[in-house]
Amino acid sequence: MKRRDFIKTSGAAAAGVASAAIAAPAISQDRIQWRLITTWPKNLPGLGTTAQYFADQVTACSDGRLEIKLFASGEVVPAFESIDAVSAGTVEMGHGAPYYWKGKAIASQLVSNFPFGLTAQEYNAWIQFGGGAQLCDEFYQDALGCRFLICGNTGVQHPGYSRKEVNSLEDFKGLKMRMPGIGGASMAAIGATVINLPGSEVAQAFASGTVDWVEWNSPYGEATMGFWRHGKYYYTPGFHEAATSLDLFINPAAWDTLPNDLKAIVTQCANSANHFALSEPVAYSGAILQKLINEEGVIVKVIPDDALIAIGNAAGEIIADQVANDPWSAKIFASMSKFRSEQIPYTDTTEGEFIRARKLPYSFPS
Amino acid sequence: MKRRDFIKTSGAAAAGVASAAIAAPAISQDRIQWRLITTWPKNLPGLGTTAQYFADQVTACSDGRLEIKLFASGEVVPAFESIDAVSAGTVEMGHGAPYYWKGKAIASQLVSNFPFGLTAQEYNAWIQFGGGAQLCDEFYQDALGCRFLICGNTGVQHPGYSRKEVNSLEDFKGLKMRMPGIGGASMAAIGATVINLPGSEVAQAFASGTVDWVEWNSPYGEATMGFWRHGKYYYTPGFHEAATSLDLFINPAAWDTLPNDLKAIVTQCANSANHFALSEPVAYSGAILQKLINEEGVIVKVIPDDALIAIGNAAGEIIADQVANDPWSAKIFASMSKFRSEQIPYTDTTEGEFIRARKLPYSFPS
Repeated sequence: MKRRDFIKTSGAAAAGVASAAIAAPAISQDRIQWRLITTWPKNLPGLGTTAQYFADQVTACSDGRLEIKLFASGEVVPAFESIDAVSAGTVEMGHGAPYYWKGKAIASQLVSNFPFGLTAQEYNAWIQFGGGAQLCDEFYQDALGCRFLICGNTGVQHPGYSRKEVNSLEDFKGLKMRMPGIGGASMAAIGATVINLPGSEVAQAFASGTVDWVEWNSPYGEATMGFWRHGKYYYTPGFHEAATSLDLFINPAAWDTLPNDLKAIVTQCANSANHFALSEPVAYSGAILQKLINEEGVIVKVIPDDALIAIGNAAGEIIADQVANDPWSAKIFASMSKFRSEQIPYTDTTEGEFIRARKLPYSFPS
Repeated sequence: MKRRDFIKTSGAAAAGVASAAIAAPAISQDRIQWRLITTWPKNLPGLGTTAQYFADQVTACSDGRLEIKLFASGEVVPAFESIDAVSAGTVEMGHGAPYYWKGKAIASQLVSNFPFGLTAQEYNAWIQFGGGAQLCDEFYQDALGCRFLICGNTGVQHPGYSRKEVNSLEDFKGLKMRMPGIGGASMAAIGATVINLPGSEVAQAFASGTVDWVEWNSPYGEATMGFWRHGKYYYTPGFHEAATSLDLFINPAAWDTLPNDLKAIVTQCANSANHFALSEPVAYSGAILQKLINEEGVIVKVIPDDALIAIGNAAGEIIADQVANDPWSAKIFASMSKFRSEQIPYTDTTEGEFIRARKLPYSFPS
């Protein structure tokens, strides 16, 4: 959710130039140009880079028969209006995160994943083999007027840096935090003072003491933010956003005009970009985290279990409310929740036990 | 490694029909037919299915300009000769697992991953952003005469079913086991009696008591094997094969004849198939494991820590020997090992802590 505010700002700033920025799509001799509007600055690590990779690969695979021209957040429409611009056919496709559309259809918040939800590996398995792709596409067509493809995942995000050490549920009472979404609402429910801040103000608010805790995303995504200068405690686990998905949304009429080979290319490149998005922050965050610990004095701390349990209960209530009041939320959550219940013990015996065993004190060549 | 024996058998049986089974590639009016030989039976869950998905998607994306025709293990050459057939240009491409080529170039065993190595998420990040793709391609060209693309990952495998409960390192002494590869060699080093068996004989050997412990792969991959009828203890973690990769190997001269758009299509579809391969067993294994526990009396057990530490030490010695004696092994292990060292603490604070926290006793809607 952190990008949301950031985008709102950049989108608003550029709102004035909206329709002037784009030309009509060029169609000549079987060559089509599509406009991909994104909700990110160009090449924003892990997000804008994924959209650019997707666009470049579609163009390359089709030998330019389908040329995808990318626009940064705000270049065509404000970021939060992207889904409307695609639905209306102003442009052919967009790249964002499902929860950006929660104001239009609250169930999109669940399509993104939910606190204590699925890991990236589970989420991708749900999409491809658990009925997720079909269900989300149906929802997007019905509620948002777009076709849906999955096109990225952030993996497990970090819940944040804190200036204060937190050793129990009690320590969260009155703690001034910046954390958006259901995660932030759950923190408020356990007594934290949650303050909404646009992305552009987050670093300054943490530096000045307006907030004691700041959530962003990953060591790689936070590399330029310098949070560690103002708070040394880097908390885990990422209960709030364990695997936030990114969406590719496509105008249905434009999609229908594509011949089957170009549809296949778009689909395969979206799958490939989905992969790319997860690998990029994972690959770089490990080395960055080691440097933060060894050279910047960052201390990795685990949120105490009593707090995690209280946060889980609060998140559960928020989700239960949403599901009770919105039919699409009920349908999507039912599918994800069934899958999650099957996966929890399986992931525990596979990834969970492997990650634990790998840390045991055996001797290994380096 | 378990598929290896299986393939050896099916390959040997079909060796006689080798060259008769294929026709010369059809090339007409910019339409190319390539032959993809695989080391699996057609549509073998998670493995043959991945190769078929890749072949179908390349054909679809290229509108048949590059038609990939798939051959099952043994249809063209015995499975273990696949890499030679591709290198020699008898066929254009093959799909298998890197460790199948360890007899030709021992470093290929490390390309597959190694005991206590990388998770699937880490492995994919290493390939795409950690220099893995370039390094493996260089190795394949130099040592195996083929180009290399990654095209699948099994995820964390299970180390096996046991008839006997194992509660300490001591209990492994003399235990008759079926486990191939460095994992099996490590088990032998701690005192187990490791018996090599072709895949076709594994189920019978476990039923008859020839072995007390049998390793295969995942609840999904083992669904038809019925191991649980003869041993109720299902051990974890998959120290031996945490994320075994699958390779797509391509004749270099054939690759060079492809125009750039078809190269891009092959690459994007291989990325997409890599994803597909992991999602398929993950998606289905969760529900199967629950059924095994609830309806078949299967008991999930963790290998005791003293045994895991001893196994880790043994695996470390085997790898150290290999690295000391083979330059390509040294180069590949150095790259993977550096990446692994960075990832262990990061994955621990992300996936590791999330998987742990998700099991806490909070109340959640279902």
